[in-house]
Amino acid sequence: MVTARYLEDYAVGQIFGSGRLRVEAQRIKSFAAEFDPQPFHLDETLAGDSIFRGLAASGWHTAAMTMRLLVDGDLKPAGGIIGTGFDEFGWPHPVRPGDELHIESEVLDVRPSRSRPDQGLIRCGRRPSTSTRRSFKSRSVTFSCRANPASNSLRPRWFNRPGCSSQRCEF
Amino acid sequence: MVTARYLEDYAVGQIFGSGRLRVEAQRIKSFAAEFDPQPFHLDETLAGDSIFRGLAASGWHTAAMTMRLLVDGDLKPAGGIIGTGFDEFGWPHPVRPGDELHIESEVLDVRPSRSRPDQGLIRCGRRPSTSTRRSFKSRSVTFSCRANPASNSLRPRWFNRPGCSSQRCEF
Repeated sequence: MVTARYLEDYAVGQIFGSGRLRVEAQRIKSFAAEFDPQPFHLDETLAGDSIFRGLAASGWHTAAMTMRLLVDGDLKPAGGIIGTGFDEFGWPHPVRPGDELHIESEVLDVRPSRSRPDQGLIRCGRRPSTSTRRSFKSRSVTFSCRANPASNSLRPRWFNRPGCSSQRCEF
Repeated sequence: MVTARYLEDYAVGQIFGSGRLRVEAQRIKSFAAEFDPQPFHLDETLAGDSIFRGLAASGWHTAAMTMRLLVDGDLKPAGGIIGTGFDEFGWPHPVRPGDELHIESEVLDVRPSRSRPDQGLIRCGRRPSTSTRRSFKSRSVTFSCRANPASNSLRPRWFNRPGCSSQRCEF
């Protein structure tokens, strides 16, 4: 069981993993029926004649499954997994029934919020692997994170220097 | 009933709308239970104490609902709504129970594929409105689209000149 981490607990270069989630054909179809009702997400035969050449999960289904991996995974920012945005986002490879999704996030940047002294931002990149290559690509995603209420709120301006966390840098 | 359009039918500046989709509290919670099980998406009381100050839809639920609006909407590229990527993506405002989602897409760019002569790409921006301001922001999203098999595959290189479609430009 991993407990939540405060902003001060993150440092550039840390890597956080997840469990694995197997993609099921029936859930591909039922998700698509509600949110993305197109032949290549609904029916194997029709999908075989499409650009995907076989049943493929809706990109939003893939994104949602990845969110589940993140929530259950090791990243655990205090306040919850709250993404503020991606700087690029796409789906380079179809996700198929039987695929196993797994993600690894690498911390690229940690910085305090300019407007909220009790909050900060953690920017993460996705580490490539066989399974993540299949799902979606993003240059980076930024999460909000609570600062430790016990720490000094006057953070040094070089807090987000590469390789530097508040534990390891001199205040 | 809007029929599918080929690449040649799109031109910069065209605007395509959608129906409306009402966000339901129960579906916010059940979607979150499967894909994003965090207190602010699952329980009104716990959500009231969170950064969202009330129940808010998972960002991926919002994205999935927006996809449904797109699939049922007027954009209709030949081959289906197949997004190749966003160049920025985020959620500036929480989506709440009772909100009505609606999207308008404006064509920003139309260009033939470099690698596939039977395909092209349509880049669209989201037009701001009260309801879209609530859901998610993106600078632009790119969709693939089939070219008309009856048209000349030797497209002019100024095909994607602003305001120019193959119908209106001299070949």
